[in-house]
Amino acid sequence: MEHVLKQFINKCDSAIQQEDFDTLLNYYTDDAILVVKPGMIAQGKEEIKKAFIAIAKYFTNSLVPAQGEMIVLEAGDTALVMSETLLTADKQETQFPMARKATYVFKKTPQGEWLCAIDNSYGTDLISSSL
Amino acid sequence: MEHVLKQFINKCDSAIQQEDFDTLLNYYTDDAILVVKPGMIAQGKEEIKKAFIAIAKYFTNSLVPAQGEMIVLEAGDTALVMSETLLTADKQETQFPMARKATYVFKKTPQGEWLCAIDNSYGTDLISSSL
Repeated sequence: MEHVLKQFINKCDSAIQQEDFDTLLNYYTDDAILVVKPGMIAQGKEEIKKAFIAIAKYFTNSLVPAQGEMIVLEAGDTALVMSETLLTADKQETQFPMARKATYVFKKTPQGEWLCAIDNSYGTDLISSSL
Repeated sequence: MEHVLKQFINKCDSAIQQEDFDTLLNYYTDDAILVVKPGMIAQGKEEIKKAFIAIAKYFTNSLVPAQGEMIVLEAGDTALVMSETLLTADKQETQFPMARKATYVFKKTPQGEWLCAIDNSYGTDLISSSL
């Protein structure tokens, strides 16, 4: 059976594609971190929403995220997901890689609901960048 | 100032080098996961201790872990650390990479103490392995 976090990430990707950022923000913890690009972090729902609006605009409102191979490491109420993240967009050239090995950290609420705490699509590639 | 998690990871590395596994296990959550190698996971303190004993033996009791560049993404009581992990040992040849881009997930207890929940020294390289 597909891991519940795979379905969860698919829902996030759909919300990004539809630019339904209010729905998307429900999937994040209040103090979640989004790595917008190497060296730029958004923290908290307000900053993350602004970042997603800017990202959508950058990709001329045509961004479609999808996931390839995915590995879930689940330790109680904490999970690390490593995923091939594949971005497509109408924009011809971007300064960012469109195929990434992402790292996502999720927390389970006392109600049993998973939420994204750390959204880092750049994965360990950040190590060689100055963050 | 050096991030508290850098100091924490240094303490873990010292405990591994000294093979002081009882001290080391204090740094993990009860349901922590250790990726022993691609395809093999230890979960919980008992399994993790056995794994560290086997790892020490594999490296002929000469394993010295150290960290290079490290990035900490902290979101409230959850943190993702990405780190260049460098292993040295007297053993001449091993089947495992000695320089890795590791991913470690930490949880902060209500008492403000960080504990390791997910210890994956292989980072996103697991994606191309069958875990």
